[in-house]
Amino acid sequence: MSDTNEVYAARMARARALMAERGIDHVFITPSSDLTYMLGYPAHASERLTLLCVSREGEPFAVAPSLEAMRLKTRADLLDVHAWGETESPTELVARLLEGGAGARIAIGDQTWAIFLLRLQDALPEASFVSGNTILRDLRMIKDEHELRIMRDASARTDEAWAEFVATGSMAGRSEQAVAADINRLLRKHGLSGEGFAIVGSGPASASPHHMTSERIIEPGDSVVCDFGARLEHYSSDITRTVHIGEPSEEYRTVYDTVLQANRAAFAAVRPGVACQEIDRAARAVITNAGYGEYFIHRVGHGLGLDVHEDPYMVEGNTLPLAPGMVFSDEPGIYIPGRFGVRIEDILVCTEDGAESLNNVSRDLVVMN
Amino acid sequence: MSDTNEVYAARMARARALMAERGIDHVFITPSSDLTYMLGYPAHASERLTLLCVSREGEPFAVAPSLEAMRLKTRADLLDVHAWGETESPTELVARLLEGGAGARIAIGDQTWAIFLLRLQDALPEASFVSGNTILRDLRMIKDEHELRIMRDASARTDEAWAEFVATGSMAGRSEQAVAADINRLLRKHGLSGEGFAIVGSGPASASPHHMTSERIIEPGDSVVCDFGARLEHYSSDITRTVHIGEPSEEYRTVYDTVLQANRAAFAAVRPGVACQEIDRAARAVITNAGYGEYFIHRVGHGLGLDVHEDPYMVEGNTLPLAPGMVFSDEPGIYIPGRFGVRIEDILVCTEDGAESLNNVSRDLVVMN
Repeated sequence: MSDTNEVYAARMARARALMAERGIDHVFITPSSDLTYMLGYPAHASERLTLLCVSREGEPFAVAPSLEAMRLKTRADLLDVHAWGETESPTELVARLLEGGAGARIAIGDQTWAIFLLRLQDALPEASFVSGNTILRDLRMIKDEHELRIMRDASARTDEAWAEFVATGSMAGRSEQAVAADINRLLRKHGLSGEGFAIVGSGPASASPHHMTSERIIEPGDSVVCDFGARLEHYSSDITRTVHIGEPSEEYRTVYDTVLQANRAAFAAVRPGVACQEIDRAARAVITNAGYGEYFIHRVGHGLGLDVHEDPYMVEGNTLPLAPGMVFSDEPGIYIPGRFGVRIEDILVCTEDGAESLNNVSRDLVVMN
Repeated sequence: MSDTNEVYAARMARARALMAERGIDHVFITPSSDLTYMLGYPAHASERLTLLCVSREGEPFAVAPSLEAMRLKTRADLLDVHAWGETESPTELVARLLEGGAGARIAIGDQTWAIFLLRLQDALPEASFVSGNTILRDLRMIKDEHELRIMRDASARTDEAWAEFVATGSMAGRSEQAVAADINRLLRKHGLSGEGFAIVGSGPASASPHHMTSERIIEPGDSVVCDFGARLEHYSSDITRTVHIGEPSEEYRTVYDTVLQANRAAFAAVRPGVACQEIDRAARAVITNAGYGEYFIHRVGHGLGLDVHEDPYMVEGNTLPLAPGMVFSDEPGIYIPGRFGVRIEDILVCTEDGAESLNNVSRDLVVMN
């Protein structure tokens, strides 16, 4: 990791500038995508606390269990690492290092485990805690050129995996889980890591946007929503394509075309300065005007990066203006309960000139057998 | 999931009995192994809050995002599900359902995200929050016969995967990551799910107990610590075996035998009523007496179940008495910095008659090429 210390030093400097602006004294970051972002250390959360503290004044430090502290040796130029032993309390160690923290305003990473927040609140009783996103959101939300290169590559490989699935795969007579396994295998074949996801919802289950892929056997007449992605250098891809098994009805074609037009309307609405909620509204207007408004039951998009869902969210009420470097999904859907659903999702980047789509595999209706 | 509603109803009843005993008014459980345990609902944590509330008095309820609420329909006999829409606040919904919660003492699941605890603390300003383990630990720590059957099966399959690796695999000239991929493939082949882990630490990295498996090429003379497991019906297995590449030195054989004796000493110390710390001490005494005490840098074991690390912990200072149905690891190790490490890990169950080992594949020193 040592050759990239300057990347993380720069991110810490930007965090400190935001902390000064927003009256935050310390940021506490524990294993999560926040820690991957700030330190390039993709540790898993566990009952043994690892915590990075970036302070507005003073040097950053980390506390880490002694049996893992050696993993951080390549970051020794950036921060002091305080190893704690199996019978010590890491939260009391943090409190000592902050000399009790009286009056401190601390932003704590959103995905930190509640047990650690409770212990830190006990150990630092005169400090106050706010969401880590107070600082992290503005940092992570704008991707730099290096991050965008990785994410373009991840999406291109995901497109390739889908194109190969459509060209060579089959659906009817097979279970959702078998199809999901095929897709996961193709994602790995195209160079993405196994830490992926594949939601396959068929028939009536295609109308459940976050369906848990089951052993249901796919049959002729089904709509099949396939929503999947995997990782490249810790960054995620995310795409949805919907296929129909056998010849679709006129009604199905109308729904499919409406979703596709909504997807295109969201794409066309993207430009710097436009509020996030306008992207949702652009897609929703198409679906509402076609008479399906009540069946579009989720926001049109979420940010994507080190997390599959992160800021910015394209949702009614979010007045945050889009800015170049923001990466987010464009995924309208229509879900008719008990019958069928359709969703079409691409990942977009906001550029100076409008949206760039990272997914470019065909969005046309695919009929499979 | 519907055929098992009675399992979860019984768990909720046991939770309520503990809540009465310990002065807890509500338990809040969010997606994590706690939710899998209490509701059989293995949802992933996300920015959209799902929360199960079990109250000492009154019916349990859940809040869930509207696009996922239908996943809980099989639990309709057990609890009310309150779906929330994309522009609503689920934490304010929880506060309304608890009528403000003034004076309530709430145990919140340890792995709940800090952002949700902060929002719940805001929405329920006159409630107090404590660790969910106040209630969950005693429930989850004692495995019932159904859980033990699954865990025996998971460990037996893990043993088979290792036996096949030793019989057919190779190490020298290959990377740690390639070996880990082989082990993961064998775990799946033997019927375990892909949600596994495989730490492969070779040469000097074998002395780093939580090494991050790397591209290092394994070579003759290396010690290679292989620590791995995967899932069966959400329960994890976990085993460590250490192999030597080529003929080992006398010193290495001495270290290996010492670790093996420590592993056997911990096994022999298990019986109901013995404090957890005594299991650690039994193993540590062997290693200390052999002169390697400073190189055994972690506790001897952790509980295992729906989490890879959970209560009870076999660590100095833990005076909790062992009881039948507790499942935990027995994994002493010796790590000589910069040179080599050895660890041997089995999963044990405390029974009325002492320890039962769920891992029974050979612990003898294996020499591979």
